[in-house]
Amino acid sequence: MGSMEVGTQVEQKSLLATLAPGKRTRLRRLLFEFGPGHGTLLFLPIDQGIEHGPRDFFPNPASKDPEYQFRLAAEAGYSAIACEIGLATKYYPDFAGQVPLILKLNSKTDVPPSGDALSTCNANVEDAVRLGADAVGYTLYVGSPRQDDDLVQLGGVRRDCDRFGMPLIIWAYPRGSAIDQKGGRDSFYAIDYAARVAMEMGADVVKLNMPKLNPDKDKDSPAPYNDWDVSLEEAIRHCVESAGRSLVVLSGGSKVDDEKLLGQTRMIMEAGGSGVIFGRNVWQRPPDVARRLMQRLHEIVHG
Amino acid sequence: MGSMEVGTQVEQKSLLATLAPGKRTRLRRLLFEFGPGHGTLLFLPIDQGIEHGPRDFFPNPASKDPEYQFRLAAEAGYSAIACEIGLATKYYPDFAGQVPLILKLNSKTDVPPSGDALSTCNANVEDAVRLGADAVGYTLYVGSPRQDDDLVQLGGVRRDCDRFGMPLIIWAYPRGSAIDQKGGRDSFYAIDYAARVAMEMGADVVKLNMPKLNPDKDKDSPAPYNDWDVSLEEAIRHCVESAGRSLVVLSGGSKVDDEKLLGQTRMIMEAGGSGVIFGRNVWQRPPDVARRLMQRLHEIVHG
Amino acid sequence: MGSMEVGTQVEQKSLLATLAPGKRTRLRRLLFEFGPGHGTLLFLPIDQGIEHGPRDFFPNPASKDPEYQFRLAAEAGYSAIACEIGLATKYYPDFAGQVPLILKLNSKTDVPPSGDALSTCNANVEDAVRLGADAVGYTLYVGSPRQDDDLVQLGGVRRDCDRFGMPLIIWAYPRGSAIDQKGGRDSFYAIDYAARVAMEMGADVVKLNMPKLNPDKDKDSPAPYNDWDVSLEEAIRHCVESAGRSLVVLSGGSKVDDEKLLGQTRMIMEAGGSGVIFGRNVWQRPPDVARRLMQRLHEIVHG
Amino acid sequence: MGSMEVGTQVEQKSLLATLAPGKRTRLRRLLFEFGPGHGTLLFLPIDQGIEHGPRDFFPNPASKDPEYQFRLAAEAGYSAIACEIGLATKYYPDFAGQVPLILKLNSKTDVPPSGDALSTCNANVEDAVRLGADAVGYTLYVGSPRQDDDLVQLGGVRRDCDRFGMPLIIWAYPRGSAIDQKGGRDSFYAIDYAARVAMEMGADVVKLNMPKLNPDKDKDSPAPYNDWDVSLEEAIRHCVESAGRSLVVLSGGSKVDDEKLLGQTRMIMEAGGSGVIFGRNVWQRPPDVARRLMQRLHEIVHG
Amino acid sequence: MGSMEVGTQVEQKSLLATLAPGKRTRLRRLLFEFGPGHGTLLFLPIDQGIEHGPRDFFPNPASKDPEYQFRLAAEAGYSAIACEIGLATKYYPDFAGQVPLILKLNSKTDVPPSGDALSTCNANVEDAVRLGADAVGYTLYVGSPRQDDDLVQLGGVRRDCDRFGMPLIIWAYPRGSAIDQKGGRDSFYAIDYAARVAMEMGADVVKLNMPKLNPDKDKDSPAPYNDWDVSLEEAIRHCVESAGRSLVVLSGGSKVDDEKLLGQTRMIMEAGGSGVIFGRNVWQRPPDVARRLMQRLHEIVHG
Repeated sequence: MGSMEVGTQVEQKSLLATLAPGKRTRLRRLLFEFGPGHGTLLFLPIDQGIEHGPRDFFPNPASKDPEYQFRLAAEAGYSAIACEIGLATKYYPDFAGQVPLILKLNSKTDVPPSGDALSTCNANVEDAVRLGADAVGYTLYVGSPRQDDDLVQLGGVRRDCDRFGMPLIIWAYPRGSAIDQKGGRDSFYAIDYAARVAMEMGADVVKLNMPKLNPDKDKDSPAPYNDWDVSLEEAIRHCVESAGRSLVVLSGGSKVDDEKLLGQTRMIMEAGGSGVIFGRNVWQRPPDVARRLMQRLHEIVHG
Repeated sequence: MGSMEVGTQVEQKSLLATLAPGKRTRLRRLLFEFGPGHGTLLFLPIDQGIEHGPRDFFPNPASKDPEYQFRLAAEAGYSAIACEIGLATKYYPDFAGQVPLILKLNSKTDVPPSGDALSTCNANVEDAVRLGADAVGYTLYVGSPRQDDDLVQLGGVRRDCDRFGMPLIIWAYPRGSAIDQKGGRDSFYAIDYAARVAMEMGADVVKLNMPKLNPDKDKDSPAPYNDWDVSLEEAIRHCVESAGRSLVVLSGGSKVDDEKLLGQTRMIMEAGGSGVIFGRNVWQRPPDVARRLMQRLHEIVHG
Repeated sequence: MGSMEVGTQVEQKSLLATLAPGKRTRLRRLLFEFGPGHGTLLFLPIDQGIEHGPRDFFPNPASKDPEYQFRLAAEAGYSAIACEIGLATKYYPDFAGQVPLILKLNSKTDVPPSGDALSTCNANVEDAVRLGADAVGYTLYVGSPRQDDDLVQLGGVRRDCDRFGMPLIIWAYPRGSAIDQKGGRDSFYAIDYAARVAMEMGADVVKLNMPKLNPDKDKDSPAPYNDWDVSLEEAIRHCVESAGRSLVVLSGGSKVDDEKLLGQTRMIMEAGGSGVIFGRNVWQRPPDVARRLMQRLHEIVHG
Repeated sequence: MGSMEVGTQVEQKSLLATLAPGKRTRLRRLLFEFGPGHGTLLFLPIDQGIEHGPRDFFPNPASKDPEYQFRLAAEAGYSAIACEIGLATKYYPDFAGQVPLILKLNSKTDVPPSGDALSTCNANVEDAVRLGADAVGYTLYVGSPRQDDDLVQLGGVRRDCDRFGMPLIIWAYPRGSAIDQKGGRDSFYAIDYAARVAMEMGADVVKLNMPKLNPDKDKDSPAPYNDWDVSLEEAIRHCVESAGRSLVVLSGGSKVDDEKLLGQTRMIMEAGGSGVIFGRNVWQRPPDVARRLMQRLHEIVHG
Repeated sequence: MGSMEVGTQVEQKSLLATLAPGKRTRLRRLLFEFGPGHGTLLFLPIDQGIEHGPRDFFPNPASKDPEYQFRLAAEAGYSAIACEIGLATKYYPDFAGQVPLILKLNSKTDVPPSGDALSTCNANVEDAVRLGADAVGYTLYVGSPRQDDDLVQLGGVRRDCDRFGMPLIIWAYPRGSAIDQKGGRDSFYAIDYAARVAMEMGADVVKLNMPKLNPDKDKDSPAPYNDWDVSLEEAIRHCVESAGRSLVVLSGGSKVDDEKLLGQTRMIMEAGGSGVIFGRNVWQRPPDVARRLMQRLHEIVHG
């Protein structure tokens, strides 16, 4: 494919080159001044408290205090920390300038079923500007029956980002009853589609979950996904390409063991990803373990 | 846990320290200038007339006249009185400056079923500023299928609070059909989740109901709540911690006897709570009885 | 009860005393300068054309021409006439200053069923100011499943009333599928609840329908209404008290005979009501009969 | 009845006398300067292309080109032509000033069923001002379950009309599942109700369809319509009276033969109507036939 | 028919003559300065990535990189390229001025079923102005149960187009459960209706899909479509006429062989169309093949 001749580094330069000064200034901090640098990204998300509830913090009780994650983000070399307005207001000030802030603008609990998922905005881009954030995050539920409301809302955020020079990071999650009937939210079909939609809607960075290849479920996806003998790395590469000039970071989801995590990260970077976003996989570990893991992640990410 | 090393008093200082001047000025009045003081809170809510109807006033007919509660709040040492716009407009002026006002911005009757609960705003933060209020109150139905509308509405209130320097108190109530299937609105799981969501959404103070430990229902909650041998005090402590730097007040609900009420209050304060909110438990009692009860509450709260 | 020591006249002074100058100026006209005066109210509503259709006018064909009611209101001593924007624009100018105008802001036809009743605004407070109205009217469907939209809409009207100094009269009608299951829209429970909600939402005057005591249906109401041996006058008195400092006017509904109407009026005034609102009961009668009836109503109302 | 002593001509003067200068200036053009004049109205509607689709044009293929209707309106003596924004923008300029324009603000296709009919605005009063229109048209679906949205939308249009001095013509159509159960959209009950609602909502002119007397269906209407021995002319007269000072024009619906059309027109004028609105009945005829028909209509309308 | 005497070229002049200067300036570029010229249109759409997902790109892997289509549009003689905001922002700058941009303002994925189809706006006309676009595109789902929302949204876009002098291109697609019951989205009835609606709503250019004549399904369409012996070219001519002064471009849909595509194009132009819009049919072919095809299309379009 044409776009495969373009390597990660070039791709990123290419993106920055297309950005207006405000976006370029801010995104450069994440890519080059913090975290592993060299045009890569390593994000710490701390929105599980609203997305899943406090239960995610019990494996490491210290993690229940948001200061834990902020300190970790500032001290262990993250490119940025992503959180909702409450944490950004009450915890970020102590670490202002020590680690870039991604203000997540929308959120929801996981209490109601997600057949008609929509994540609505509780904060806006002006809040992000006021707080000194270097990017905003938006969760888009690709394929949800409520995409009509979702795309309008995202359009408003995107316009504000253009107005204020604020990078836009889209958490592109396939979701809803119709996706469930076409291979499911983790299918290659769904993740690949989500990557493209995020780019089409103006994402500067796209956050994806790892696709899961599952022939039994993939047969319900549209062609050619329904009958495609592809490796996981190839699938990731396709997703990265579908996002075009938008940078892609992938996440690991729930906690896995060190070697698996590092292996996944290596695969992501080799497949053209710009970095990873690891939350529970880092802060559910004890601090020292987490810091050692971060060092190894750094090496892999900018290796 | 990390945050457990931080006691109530320190926690409150910590909160005030993070607040902008307007919020700090106003919240300080509630914490130090009125009520039991010493950084504690004792609220009188008088929104039962709309939330439940006049039937709540029959046990003490004098309580039907809102002047009764305002006089009680001003004379018996409450930190603040919380009410809707109608009472704030027609009754608060006579007591202006004698007791701080918390303007409740949203409300609903309990006539329709609450499977899709949403409490919409009938007043705004500018109303609160105009009336000399020192805080606004917002009821958030955590986990309701209509959380999409709720979080947007709360986001607007939160932004206005930031703009006007107005403290935001969130009544964080688990509610709706999905919560009913996961242990119910009073379960430890639900209350703990609600505490965190309120903090994530920018609450300065979170109002919670007392969790009710009930193994029969808790088994429907997600792990680890579904199989957790925890004491009520430990459960409260967890909820207080989940609210992070947001202060927590707990309520007693319907009327119970004096000793039980005082015992609960003691437990709340020992578990890290910043205070209590008692409505029917105080104004359903005769005035003299209520005043004596208030004295004993004062002692426990700042004890 | 405390508030029962306060008589009608004092209650009204008390209300006026709490009002800002614009509201006070306008409401004083209704209470003292027009109609029976002495702090009482006698309203003529002419919104049946939209609420029920032209069929209400057939018993007295002359009443189909709105000029009939405007002339009646101006000449027979009403405190004010209440109508929608169309009549206010095309018929009120001829009687401007001869009788105060209450602009009803919302309305609906009775064609669709009322299980989810909501009456939306077709005019606003600025229209009322422009037309020289002395109050606005708003129909609130207390307990309707659409109370979420209703309370937001009312909140906007209430804020405009505060802004322009315009008295707010709430037609507080229990309505909707849930009320039907708890004793019905005319039950003491429902009317009493409606009175309180209107006051909590900022009504200066509350318009109620007469409660109907019906043990068979009342048993479905919440305690204590489900088993309460109360007289009609006591029930009305409770409803008046539930409205607190908001003045209360009651209506008679469909046409009844003279003596019954006068007897009801006497009971309303003795129970603490501030007046009555009679539409069909007056303009479905021939003009001379209507005028004689009005004289007797005057005597009872300020008697 | 009182209003029956007032003839058509007086009624119209009466309306103009109540109007603000902008409305009076514009409406006078329709009533006196164009069409049959003498205070009468003869409208050509050309919105069938969106309301029904191109199939209405096949009986006279030339009518498919909108220029056909504009030329007819300008040359055959219409009081005004009513159309949507697309035609007003692309075809009216060639005939500007030669025939007054009524800009229809809302519309819908007839593809989906009409049980919950709502016609939403695709243009606004400012568009009408910019295009030099002398009135705006609004379709109100009286009695539709979506009347809540409809009346709000109409309220906004009405306010803009008051602001810009633009006459408001309401197409008052009973519609929706509930009307179907009470005699149907063409019943005397429904049309009479619609006339009154349009007037109550601020119409300067009301467009009605001819009621159809049908005892079999009328028995489902509320009293007295369910058992009323009335002639068609009497029914029309009632509808005209229900609209009060608003002028009434009636339409003929689908194409009928000349004599029936002229007979209906005569009946409408004798029953107090201010004119007629004929679309398909004119432009589905060949041009010469249409012009001869228009001459006879002129004679009847101002006869 | 009257309008049939007017040929393509005259029709287009006629349209330009009715346009305000901003629209005329911009539309002239598409009609005369780029592409085949001579008042014709040849559009390249690249919104399949969101409308269908990346699967459309697999037949020609190079097409997955949006740069492929932009380069093709600029170098192979297209009148304009149509895409969503993400591509316009990140890929158009490199080709700015080399090919006109049509910014598509709304979009949706094809994951959920389309029974209630609505495509909501993720960008606005100001975005188009800022990006130097020469037109905006809007997808209207004619006949969808959600046409109420669709027509309001389109009305806002149309007004902005009038305000900024921006040509409005409507993708007029019959869609939704009701259309499916009346012959389907590709029926002559549906396409013809869609053409007229787009014109009535203010389209400057209408994009239609080719009607498919299918007697088995057409019998469910309203008369006269249900029993009409018409050729495909006649059907297209009718659709072109239904769009009146709005220009019409037709598309070919999924990929067909060269001769069929060229034959269709010839038929479209002979039937009065102003041009064609070919996406997959061009960029799913290898670059050289696509360029040769474009040359032949040029000849046919302005031939």
